[in-house]
Parts: sequence; C-alpha cells; structure tokens
Amino acid sequence: MTKIKEDKFLPPESPEIWFTEKHTNNCGITFKVNKTLYSGRSKYQRIDILETPEFGRVMLLDGLVMLTQKDEFVYHEMITQIPLFTHKNPKSYLVIGGGDGGTVSRVALHPEIEKITEVEIDEDVVNVSKRFFPEIASGYNDRRTKLIIDDGIKFIENSESKYDIVTVDSTDPFGPAEGLFSEKFYNDIYNSLTDTGILTVQSETPFYDIDATKVIYKNLKKSFPIVRVYLAFIPTYPAGVWSFCLASKMYDPLIDFDEKRFSAVSLPLKYYNKQIHKAVFALPSVYNVF
Amino acid sequence: MTKIKEDKFLPPESPEIWFTEKHTNNCGITFKVNKTLYSGRSKYQRIDILETPEFGRVMLLDGLVMLTQKDEFVYHEMITQIPLFTHKNPKSYLVIGGGDGGTVSRVALHPEIEKITEVEIDEDVVNVSKRFFPEIASGYNDRRTKLIIDDGIKFIENSESKYDIVTVDSTDPFGPAEGLFSEKFYNDIYNSLTDTGILTVQSETPFYDIDATKVIYKNLKKSFPIVRVYLAFIPTYPAGVWSFCLASKMYDPLIDFDEKRFSAVSLPLKYYNKQIHKAVFALPSVYNVF
Repeated sequence: MTKIKEDKFLPPESPEIWFTEKHTNNCGITFKVNKTLYSGRSKYQRIDILETPEFGRVMLLDGLVMLTQKDEFVYHEMITQIPLFTHKNPKSYLVIGGGDGGTVSRVALHPEIEKITEVEIDEDVVNVSKRFFPEIASGYNDRRTKLIIDDGIKFIENSESKYDIVTVDSTDPFGPAEGLFSEKFYNDIYNSLTDTGILTVQSETPFYDIDATKVIYKNLKKSFPIVRVYLAFIPTYPAGVWSFCLASKMYDPLIDFDEKRFSAVSLPLKYYNKQIHKAVFALPSVYNVF
Repeated sequence: MTKIKEDKFLPPESPEIWFTEKHTNNCGITFKVNKTLYSGRSKYQRIDILETPEFGRVMLLDGLVMLTQKDEFVYHEMITQIPLFTHKNPKSYLVIGGGDGGTVSRVALHPEIEKITEVEIDEDVVNVSKRFFPEIASGYNDRRTKLIIDDGIKFIENSESKYDIVTVDSTDPFGPAEGLFSEKFYNDIYNSLTDTGILTVQSETPFYDIDATKVIYKNLKKSFPIVRVYLAFIPTYPAGVWSFCLASKMYDPLIDFDEKRFSAVSLPLKYYNKQIHKAVFALPSVYNVF
C-alpha cells in the first residue's frame, strides 16, 4: 500500500464548528464547539448543551449563553454571596428562576441558611442541568432545598411566606422573563421579604445598553429605600462586564458586611472575598449614573 | 417600468463583512466592519484601521485589536491615572511604546506634569494614529510632549534622565514587544526612576493565561519593593478583563491616593474616579495569586 504523503486534498478529520452569539447586531462572541450534547425544546424555550474546548460545557437558552463551566462561578457567587454576607442573620432564601441550579448551590454553601426555596417555571431546564451539570446543580440535592415548578410572578403574588433574601436569577428582559423586571413584581417581592430583607437581581451589561440597567434600578427604587448597582467580570457574557442590583429594606452592603461571619467560615468561593464585597460597588464613571 | 416586488434573488446592497480576532485557538471576538480605512505594513508590523458600527474606528496591529474609539479610554486612563494620583508630586513622565497617543493624551490632562517623553519604535503607528484618531493622539500636540522614535530598550539602557513615572504601553509579550517584559528591562527602568518613582505596565488578561501576568509580576518584583496588580473592564480585549501592574519604590497606591489633588482638579475622565482608585486592586479570588 502506498503511503499518502499529501493530504491537502483530503477533508479534515472533523469539521471545525464554531458557535457565534451576537451581543448586538454588530458584534459578538465566537467559540469552537466539539459537539452538541443535547438539543431540545421545552414548553418555554429551546435548550442546547454544547461541549467546547475553551469553556467546557455550555448551556444555551434560545441560542444565548446562559452558563459555561469555566466562568459560571462569577455570576452565581456574585448574585448570592453579596446579600448573604450583607444580611446579619439570613435563615430563608428564595430563588426565582435559576433553573440551572448554580444559584441554589451557592446558597446551600451557607450553614446558617435553614430553608432554600426555588421557583422555576421550566422543569426541563432543571432536568437538563442535573444531567449535564451535576456539580452546578448539586444544591437541588440539599435537604434544605425545595424546588417548586411554577410561574415566579404568580408565586410571589400569592405567597404568604416571608424570606430574608430573594434572588431573581432570570434570562434577559424580553421574551419569557419580561415580567420579572417590572415595578409590580419588585413590589410583590418587597412584600414577601422580612423587615430586614434583601433582593438581588441580574441587571444586564451596562456597556451596550445602560438604559436596561437604569430601568431595572429605577423600578427597584420605587419599592426599596436602598438600591445599589455592582459589577463583575463574566467573560462569556456580552462585553464581559455584567451588572447586578441589590435592593434592601435596611442593610447597606457598603456598611453591613458581616466580616465576623465571613471569617468564621471557609467556603469554596472562587470570586467573592472580603475585598470584592465592597470593591464591586465602585463603578467606573461612565457607569456611575444611578 | 415594472416595480420589482421580490428581491430574494437580488444580491444585498453591500456584503456583510465581519472581523474575527481569535483570543485563543478556540474562541474570540467578532464584529461587523463597514470598511477598511487604511492598511499598511511598517518596518515592524502590519497596521489596519477599520470603521465599525459597534466600536467606531478600530486599530489593529498584526491583526489584533489595539484600540477602539468606544472603549480605549479604559486602558489609557487606567495605565496613567492610577500612578498619577498615587505619586505626590509627579513632574516628569516617560511613556515607552503607546504610539497611538492615548496614553500621552491622558498624561497631558495633568497640569502638574512639566515634561512628557514618549519613546516609540514605530513612527508609522504614530502617523496613522494622528491621521485616523486625532483626538486620541492629541497629546502629541501638547507643548510639554517630546516624541522620540527609538527602541525603548536601548533608550532606557542609555538614559541619563530620571522620571517620576514611567509607563510601558506595549503590545503582547511575543514578537516585537517581547523584550519589554524582561527582568533586565524592568531593572533599567528602576534605575531611570527618581527615588519616589512609579512604573505601570499592561500585563495581559488573567482569564485565559494567568501565567503571563504572573511572569510580569515576578519580573517586576525582582527590582521593585512594591508591586500591585489591578484589573479593568475592556470589552474589546480578550475576555474583557485586563490586568495592569504598578511597581513602585515608595508610594503604595492603596495608601497614597492623593485625594486633595484629585479633588482640586476636574479632569475629563470616563473610567477613573476616587472609588475606582482603590477598588481595582481588589482581585477576585481566582486572580488573587500574587
């Protein structure tokens, strides 16, 4: 048999497949895909799980990156640890959305939390996450966690329980999650919080459209006396700069960092630390418009 | 004449052209290009100027994004304002590299600076920047600025002047700029600084390869008693998270913020402010390895 010496006319061993997410009409992120592990359509949205060489496994909802194994810790730590170490004595935590489980898992790190409730509208997201991201979804196995498959808006309207902390871990403010950014919804959450309660929400990137963040801030301000915006580096999200809002009845994250409790525990955190707790509220001047 | 009702077989008015920069072998940024305004090859590198709908004009060196009109202010403010407001009485400033002029222009904002020297190896970059980014390059027109076209490594080896602040505003640590990250070079800069002198350098993204940042830090530490790493959001740079190192003989940016001088001036800064000065040194735990 003759050895083939020139392979220039042979096809490559496998095609190079790249996924591109447009962050605006004019720019986006692009990354190589080894294979698609799962594609499905739930009652609410399309769900895809990709395996990638750069970011590990990636979850897409309606074609947009929701989380990657490489940097999901940033989002999930920042939306939970800031309120958890601002509140002096948190016992009960409600997560609205967050069907991948990353948020619940970071709440479950805290021994002082007695009750974790998650209300997620899309059961398929939970099941897909448990299957493809068992570590990220591990919080669902915690004995304190109760998962309710329901519409968060209706749930909070009718809820008679009070929570110390609520986190709205939603997709973008268009499509299925639109109502999760409204003044009415935030007011209903206010009423479901204890007198010292804290709410955190994701509030989009300020780089491409700071008005989205401003609207969220403004809507929160109608119900809560203290609202603060903070930022984190999330490389696989649009612009790599992501904002969150903390809305609070009494505690101020800039004053009420519970250093004693923080120093007493040793949590496996990769982003959040004592310095980060305050530093993330220092906004670059262009974003300092709240 | 019959009106054409279906244009599905007609070509679009103009083709959609997208530029993609790979940040690693497996991922990158992609953005639309209206047109290429300039392409040339200098003695050292290829220079391209693109006009884009998302980021305005963009300068590429050897195919990599060096600056965009939309977010260049972050890099240029962060590499200059941190040392300028850490030093108590800066009079002379040396920039090595930085041929687009953005760094010199942000130094020239400071009335207390008496002498600005830039040593850039590639005159073509300066001329192209003056032509396509006149505002960013405006610092070259300042009467205090002296531009020297020379190799920064040789310049600093033979320099007999002393500077209060030096900034190395270089491309990545491979190719033409490799020597600008060496222990020897940093030591030569140490010797060209006054007794209270400060050096700042760009030190790559820690997200894809923190070892690059670590090597820079380590090399600086061999000459300087105080070396601190800080971060900024630069959406058009790899991962959107960029690091800088400040190396200092005496002043510590965490202690020696000159609040009085900062409050006395009103500079047109878009990123840097009083809170940012300290907050940028708070590193997320995964990057807190220095």
